[in-house]
Amino acid sequence: MGYDDAVEPYKAMHLERIDGPDDLKQLTRADLPLLAQELRARIVEVCARNGGHVAPNLGVVELTIALHRVFSSPDDKIVWDVGHQTYAHKMLTGRNGRFDSLRQQGGIAGFPERGESKHDHFGTAHASTAISAALGMATARDLAGRDERVVAVVGDGALTGGLAYEAINNAGQLKTNFIVVLNDNEFSIAPNVGAMSTYLSMLRAHPLVVHTADLTKRVLRRLPFGQVATKAIRSAETAGRKTVSPLPKASVVFEEMGFTYIGPCNGHDVNFLIDALRACTKVEGPVLLHVLTVKGMGFEPAQGDARTFHGVAAFDPVTGEFAKKSGTTFASTFANEATKMAAHDPRIVAVTAAMPDGTGLKEFAKAYPARFFDVGIAEAHATCFAAGASAAGLRPLVAIYSTFLQRAYDQIVHDVSVQSLPVTFCIDRAGLVGDDGKTHQGAYDIAYLRTLPNVVIMAPSTEDELRMMLRYGHALHDGTTDDGVKHAGPVAIRYPRGSSAKREDRPEPAALEFGKAQVLREGERDGVAIVASGICVEAAIGAASTLAAEGIETTVVNARFIRPLDIGLIKKLARTYRAIVTVEEHSLAGGFGSAVLEALADAGEMIRVVRLGISETFVSHATQAAQRRVSGLDEAGVVKAVREILGVDGKIAAVEMNLDRSLSS
Amino acid sequence: MGYDDAVEPYKAMHLERIDGPDDLKQLTRADLPLLAQELRARIVEVCARNGGHVAPNLGVVELTIALHRVFSSPDDKIVWDVGHQTYAHKMLTGRNGRFDSLRQQGGIAGFPERGESKHDHFGTAHASTAISAALGMATARDLAGRDERVVAVVGDGALTGGLAYEAINNAGQLKTNFIVVLNDNEFSIAPNVGAMSTYLSMLRAHPLVVHTADLTKRVLRRLPFGQVATKAIRSAETAGRKTVSPLPKASVVFEEMGFTYIGPCNGHDVNFLIDALRACTKVEGPVLLHVLTVKGMGFEPAQGDARTFHGVAAFDPVTGEFAKKSGTTFASTFANEATKMAAHDPRIVAVTAAMPDGTGLKEFAKAYPARFFDVGIAEAHATCFAAGASAAGLRPLVAIYSTFLQRAYDQIVHDVSVQSLPVTFCIDRAGLVGDDGKTHQGAYDIAYLRTLPNVVIMAPSTEDELRMMLRYGHALHDGTTDDGVKHAGPVAIRYPRGSSAKREDRPEPAALEFGKAQVLREGERDGVAIVASGICVEAAIGAASTLAAEGIETTVVNARFIRPLDIGLIKKLARTYRAIVTVEEHSLAGGFGSAVLEALADAGEMIRVVRLGISETFVSHATQAAQRRVSGLDEAGVVKAVREILGVDGKIAAVEMNLDRSLSS
Repeated sequence: MGYDDAVEPYKAMHLERIDGPDDLKQLTRADLPLLAQELRARIVEVCARNGGHVAPNLGVVELTIALHRVFSSPDDKIVWDVGHQTYAHKMLTGRNGRFDSLRQQGGIAGFPERGESKHDHFGTAHASTAISAALGMATARDLAGRDERVVAVVGDGALTGGLAYEAINNAGQLKTNFIVVLNDNEFSIAPNVGAMSTYLSMLRAHPLVVHTADLTKRVLRRLPFGQVATKAIRSAETAGRKTVSPLPKASVVFEEMGFTYIGPCNGHDVNFLIDALRACTKVEGPVLLHVLTVKGMGFEPAQGDARTFHGVAAFDPVTGEFAKKSGTTFASTFANEATKMAAHDPRIVAVTAAMPDGTGLKEFAKAYPARFFDVGIAEAHATCFAAGASAAGLRPLVAIYSTFLQRAYDQIVHDVSVQSLPVTFCIDRAGLVGDDGKTHQGAYDIAYLRTLPNVVIMAPSTEDELRMMLRYGHALHDGTTDDGVKHAGPVAIRYPRGSSAKREDRPEPAALEFGKAQVLREGERDGVAIVASGICVEAAIGAASTLAAEGIETTVVNARFIRPLDIGLIKKLARTYRAIVTVEEHSLAGGFGSAVLEALADAGEMIRVVRLGISETFVSHATQAAQRRVSGLDEAGVVKAVREILGVDGKIAAVEMNLDRSLSS
Repeated sequence: MGYDDAVEPYKAMHLERIDGPDDLKQLTRADLPLLAQELRARIVEVCARNGGHVAPNLGVVELTIALHRVFSSPDDKIVWDVGHQTYAHKMLTGRNGRFDSLRQQGGIAGFPERGESKHDHFGTAHASTAISAALGMATARDLAGRDERVVAVVGDGALTGGLAYEAINNAGQLKTNFIVVLNDNEFSIAPNVGAMSTYLSMLRAHPLVVHTADLTKRVLRRLPFGQVATKAIRSAETAGRKTVSPLPKASVVFEEMGFTYIGPCNGHDVNFLIDALRACTKVEGPVLLHVLTVKGMGFEPAQGDARTFHGVAAFDPVTGEFAKKSGTTFASTFANEATKMAAHDPRIVAVTAAMPDGTGLKEFAKAYPARFFDVGIAEAHATCFAAGASAAGLRPLVAIYSTFLQRAYDQIVHDVSVQSLPVTFCIDRAGLVGDDGKTHQGAYDIAYLRTLPNVVIMAPSTEDELRMMLRYGHALHDGTTDDGVKHAGPVAIRYPRGSSAKREDRPEPAALEFGKAQVLREGERDGVAIVASGICVEAAIGAASTLAAEGIETTVVNARFIRPLDIGLIKKLARTYRAIVTVEEHSLAGGFGSAVLEALADAGEMIRVVRLGISETFVSHATQAAQRRVSGLDEAGVVKAVREILGVDGKIAAVEMNLDRSLSS
């Protein structure tokens, strides 16, 4: 049995009258718990249809109401860390009417976006940024002599990220007024890890504590947890004026970092939260309000399984059941193969950064718990830890989404590549990612990795090929590949979200050879050769079949290796065909196609190259299929490019004219 | 008056007999303070000639002796955070004989390098990595069932970096045995900042404290600071077995993170340190040994001005005086212009990450202390803080070296670029950096920045042009440039270490126009056009003058903008000349020349392009001039490339053959 209000169509009598924070302030305090229920019903209703971050949003409903009741957005600023918990915020700031379009193409984004509303003060999606950004905002306010309030809402999971710590460290020195709300639900994407998590668990067991950061004027008030809020206010107001000792150890870490600590508070008592937030506004300097919430609160299936309901596809709004999952994915294949490989080589360990579910690695963790390391939302450490482990004999597989691996860029360069260590990066969600939208696109990894002198980059076009590449990459480090190649230094394998399609017209993958592509189809001499990387091979094969039906025979190459490129083949293509079309799910600037251009230039080969990829834009939320379509990376996009080159539409592109001029001059 | 031992040639009677850690263990304990003096004399002697990190190395002499006395490298592993303090370590591990070659081309590196010695267990140079790497090594040891010791030596400055925190957080959970030596000198590159620094100051004032991380079995021993070490050992040995309360607040932060804390200890009492380190080996789980050292210890000029003596050029070994500094540099010009701009616009703030001296920003800080933010070794936070500040109305100039900006890559993408915020990145030391070597080359910033859809990237060829670009970039954000362009989103200006040369044959810079290059010299039609970016314009001009003397007239273009490129000019060049030579101090993969190739391909232009830049290698320590020479980026390198294209040496390159074949087929 699910959420009661979802069973019968719910009359959102309060929510429907709210068009912005001012309307919220017209409600009585007694109305607020009812408003919370309405927001929950709406979250479940829309997410059941569109998918979304159900559990995180259900957990912060009361907190969101309290924030918008106490503060006056858009003058006051609220920065939501990660931002996947802003559904109630969006509904309370004039977007309830459009909320049905959540995560749909052209609809409300799943994360705050400055372009979407004046109430989205700072866009977020990657974790641990909010304290840093809020501190910047508070500093701007101070320098301008303004007096708005600045609040950062941060989950306990985000505290495993070093950026949050860097910001806390800086805030404790700058001493400007701002509020950090620590939304503690013992969870990030997965159950939290690390010493800070243990520490927070201890804090949870304490009664409400209020004291100042000022070491010379230490004040303590103990209140029974959940007691009426007026006492909490009073204790905060008196902060700094009385001295009580001994200091409870509980809040020492934050206090030592220069924050006044208040908490922990029941995060589902909306009126208590309002009072606690008002108390925070009376404190000088940075304040940390520790709020305890339950992920999935109020919707039993999510409350009972917050891990599954962190971010989900559509589900039954009553039972919480999902449609049957569709077979294997690149992620599940990676995890399955990694687990098999681990059985044969005790040096293999798996490292991830709070993505044990998304990367599929929970399978590995179950089989080899001592060899699985989830280090928290800490990609830099995951990479540097793997570098250390590999220097001492291990063979780490570091599984991180492309967009988050950006956070470990310097460690990839400085710790792994400079030292030529045998670390394998398993880069999930490389390319277009679907409804998470512009902040999550895996569009840059080729560009930032292929500069490194000793990196090998592969991209599989199917799950089978991913298995082959995992085994090949591992063998490369030992020099035990079938083609006898040994390679020191990082290996990166980039693969997309989701799965590949079964296609009749796709040849079987050949055995891997170092730096060698596979020709999948041979077209006419003087025609077009399509060189595709990774999942784009699918669109290339489809396009070739479609074109063949029109009598246009194109060559299709599965690049397999992005670095080293198959330069021999590329030279041959340049000498055989009229044009090369490169296809990649990556930024055109600096991507795979750019590497092909470099190879051609270095070889002194002249041939027209048309590059298909993500051109100069951040691709917004939509389905992966829609994103591929708008980016011209589906079958139709490839067909169109080939037709334009050949002028078969009667449209000879302007560039074609230049080409001719250039060749004939 | 300087270091006494440096006045008279010193007989290093102990040091000269040490060829490795085993020899060190043959000395008596009474010999060790003398060995320390010998090491100091040698550090001052060599650095006075070669330059180097004088102050950090003088501070850890006793600590280094103690580490190699207690532990057995290479079996036991020592990871030196930053690694610029490893001179004594290098001398004690068989490299004293070659130590005169420190930081010279082909000589001993200024940082640990795995390729240089089996005793350099992990290469370091960027801060805050050591705990993370050491934890990885300890984990590898545990999984393999080995029992070596693993030690990370970390400065207090490195604790401002989030990566150190991520590692501590993870270590506190993994609970494996390893030792973190906190080398606390109240300094990183500049005096330390942040709440952690304040916290450490408080710890310094405490007596020696030893207790365990185990919250249920808390043990405390107070010893008078500096007391004989046996007591410290005994207290450590009994850790976990007695209960004493109350717990002193002093060490709570580290303890809450799961470490046993021991300290603070006098870091210049070598025999005390030996005992303290032995005590650490008896503790279960992670231990933090807090050691107090003085930067520059024993050499008065450095001890008195550790900031200046952090990293220095050659100096007088007696007085500590430097040769007169040679005029302005790009860094000093940046700081000077930024300070002037700040006088006219109160929105301008300067942000750096522990580089107030290197970036020149101490000038800005002096003029506008409230608008200057040194956030510590925390590049990610510096960038995210600037994003927040710019979202709230400020116009931050973020000044970070190219190599360290790698640490803020995700924040540049996710916080600045996705949100199109007006942040200006002033990227110092872009390109070849000289004696800091391979870990510090600014070789990747173009590749990782130019993928972003809304970034403007400029590179000045002279200090004057840097001034112009700073003003232009600032005006771009307001739409007040002379050419009337407004641009939202990040602006990046990359400039090199050092200064540009005055040249008679260099035309005056023209006024900047958005995305426009400046043609500096017009050559013969059908000849070669050299398109250079940034400091490489100098080599291009020089090459053109040299070639002109041979009767070869080349065109020289100062690209100015890397993004957007001057596509109109590039097309014109393609239609006018036989070949384009691009010149950049950056990785060839994904760099400026690669952007030119993309523009040509997209325009359908066919022309031979020869790209000069850093090819597939990490460039080792040497002078900048030598690095430019080996990379073919000096005048001679450009001359050679043009001659090869024209075949004037009688050597027609193989690629030229392909070009002809391709053009004629």
